[in-house]
Amino acid sequence: MTKNQNQLPRVVIVGAGFGGLRAARALADAPVHVTLIDRNNYHLFQPLLYQVATAGLSADEIAYPIRGILRKQKNLTFIMSEVKSLNLKESEIITEQTAIPFDYLILAVGSETNFFNNPDLQQHSYGLKDLQEAQSIRNHILNQFEKATLETDERLRKAMLTFVIAGGGPTGVEMAGAIAELVRVMHKDYPGLDPQHIQVVLLEAMDRLLAHLTTDSSQSTLNALAGKGVQVRLNTLVKSYDGRVIQLSEKQQLPSNTLIWAAGVQAASLVRELSQEKLPQNRIKVLPTLQIPQNERVFLIGDAAYLPDQNGQALPMVAPVAMQQADLAVKNLLRLIQSEPLKPFYYKDMGSMATIGRNQAVAELFGLRLRGWLAWLVWLFVHLMQLVGFRNRLVVLINWAWQYWFYDRAVRLIEKGDCD
Amino acid sequence: MTKNQNQLPRVVIVGAGFGGLRAARALADAPVHVTLIDRNNYHLFQPLLYQVATAGLSADEIAYPIRGILRKQKNLTFIMSEVKSLNLKESEIITEQTAIPFDYLILAVGSETNFFNNPDLQQHSYGLKDLQEAQSIRNHILNQFEKATLETDERLRKAMLTFVIAGGGPTGVEMAGAIAELVRVMHKDYPGLDPQHIQVVLLEAMDRLLAHLTTDSSQSTLNALAGKGVQVRLNTLVKSYDGRVIQLSEKQQLPSNTLIWAAGVQAASLVRELSQEKLPQNRIKVLPTLQIPQNERVFLIGDAAYLPDQNGQALPMVAPVAMQQADLAVKNLLRLIQSEPLKPFYYKDMGSMATIGRNQAVAELFGLRLRGWLAWLVWLFVHLMQLVGFRNRLVVLINWAWQYWFYDRAVRLIEKGDCD
Repeated sequence: MTKNQNQLPRVVIVGAGFGGLRAARALADAPVHVTLIDRNNYHLFQPLLYQVATAGLSADEIAYPIRGILRKQKNLTFIMSEVKSLNLKESEIITEQTAIPFDYLILAVGSETNFFNNPDLQQHSYGLKDLQEAQSIRNHILNQFEKATLETDERLRKAMLTFVIAGGGPTGVEMAGAIAELVRVMHKDYPGLDPQHIQVVLLEAMDRLLAHLTTDSSQSTLNALAGKGVQVRLNTLVKSYDGRVIQLSEKQQLPSNTLIWAAGVQAASLVRELSQEKLPQNRIKVLPTLQIPQNERVFLIGDAAYLPDQNGQALPMVAPVAMQQADLAVKNLLRLIQSEPLKPFYYKDMGSMATIGRNQAVAELFGLRLRGWLAWLVWLFVHLMQLVGFRNRLVVLINWAWQYWFYDRAVRLIEKGDCD
Repeated sequence: MTKNQNQLPRVVIVGAGFGGLRAARALADAPVHVTLIDRNNYHLFQPLLYQVATAGLSADEIAYPIRGILRKQKNLTFIMSEVKSLNLKESEIITEQTAIPFDYLILAVGSETNFFNNPDLQQHSYGLKDLQEAQSIRNHILNQFEKATLETDERLRKAMLTFVIAGGGPTGVEMAGAIAELVRVMHKDYPGLDPQHIQVVLLEAMDRLLAHLTTDSSQSTLNALAGKGVQVRLNTLVKSYDGRVIQLSEKQQLPSNTLIWAAGVQAASLVRELSQEKLPQNRIKVLPTLQIPQNERVFLIGDAAYLPDQNGQALPMVAPVAMQQADLAVKNLLRLIQSEPLKPFYYKDMGSMATIGRNQAVAELFGLRLRGWLAWLVWLFVHLMQLVGFRNRLVVLINWAWQYWFYDRAVRLIEKGDCD
């Protein structure tokens, strides 16, 4: 009694991040045909993107071909394409090449960097959301060192060796810690450069780092970063940036050739047309069942979905939320097909963590607060286990072990041709 | 009695390939100051470049930061810069940023792809001389598969899945074998594509492959490639290519979206101004002492140098020649400083080899002719041992082992932003 695949309900999933990939796999044995669409041919392990940006890992160690992951899933078709718009009335999505009809749609489009409509910032600073950006940051940082060795003007040389990160959330903290460690490695290679001229600065608009954790964790993060030589400036806003000088709030200026923007994300532009309602991070409101209000056959999960938790707080834009929502969206979708009642989403918060570098992390998990070496080991284990594919895990572990023992960085290559 | 480094003779080395890097290291304990210049910040292990082009290895596995390699060499300064021209009269080289004076110069500039002044070929086909080209080939090949799944016109789809390599030398043979194996891996990921439509074609203008080896080795190479599904067409010239259709000599056409040009190299353009004499591959004649005729303080080694062997044959453009010449150039340079007589170059030919893929290679070493599995093991061992850095060796070995056992390819990522 197997149905022809052509007669099966057509489920289209947009996005092969943590949410979309999880949803695709959860539908493996369901009586539906799945079409998964992503602009890239790989799934990106975003939590380690900052390591690519700081020459610790190479691109293929955190990216895994989607077709390879889903090779054995017979009810799935993968399409590498950029989705240009949604035509919910006609039940189709519009890609660069064609229109793809759906019976049910799961939007797992994630988020993008939010430059808060500041075109100067957008043009001159680096986001950290995809492989290209990470590799651009790596090339740029390494290039600054090479340029600095040839620069005779001390003022210009200092700006080349001043690396600024805006945003004291997990991404900013991890980037600052990783750059500080990279700089320490790099310095061995540039005996002619004055260490006094190398600065890593982390700017945070609020009065503490990692505001989603306890003040204790914020403080120990600050201390750990300071110990690595990172200058943390709290209560400091970036007003504008022209690629040479960062204009700070209180008429202060900071000359720097490098600004990494980790101070904001927002829902991916594709879904922003779905609602006029202005919600934080331009996210789109979903029902507790994860359907969008306008169309019961469309589910929206992950970073782009706005759903308050039991306390009225919007759920954080993190992978565990996306993955738990993927599980419920798939179950609700199958309930909808069978005309059963749908269930609401409840987030099981496992806690969160951030690494500050070698031997240093903070973690608040299952009610426990960890920091330092133990938190770092937990962080290492959790991330290694989640990396897709045995080969990736092994190669990443070798890279990490190498860096740990030898204070070295594996991928210190300046690659050209990335159009910058 | 140590001299001040400023008073030491200034030796400038252009190029950090096999020759230049070897020369730099050989000068480690000499009473000179060495300035090594390269356009990249890494030494590239060119013999494995085809593996990056076919998704077997990632860039950092065959490229190693020059500053890391030479960190402990106190008499050396590295400059990452593109050399624009040579001013031998003033004893300086002109880079993008500045002029660098020298007392002695070692030119180890290598070779570049020779499109024989055919601008169409140059524009539409891929060379294989640097990391960017290798990554462009990888992205392009993988993209053809993704595009083919969406293409409804059978003729166009077939051209997308026809991969043509021009040139039956070691590079062409290795590329053809590696693409044939990649295609076999890829096919598992694209169940919708007709294997009949996937073609790998190797074009060779002469009547046999690997013309520098014996006819026996040529024949077994041809057989091995045919066994992998490569169509080898001997006595076939490429006249032109517009990116869609390859025009062959005898009015024949071959529709293909991919032409990899491994049919010619020539001396790097930087040194071609040194002589008007037209020699094969636009190489520049050097004296047996490896000095150029015009200037006794300038040594030219490696691919760009034209020097006949005992039989009047020009030495091959391969790494062992460059490295042996580096050793002699350094010795002669030091003799010159001490006003001792210089010695002529004699090439110790260790033989040559080429891999055709999994379990398949040909090697002619020390008078022995090997082929098949044993030649492949020798090839593997020789190349692994030469790779700079323990970490690289280990990671490359894991990648190879993975591919060997699982018939998989590690780096099947389509990276964007490489401007193509």
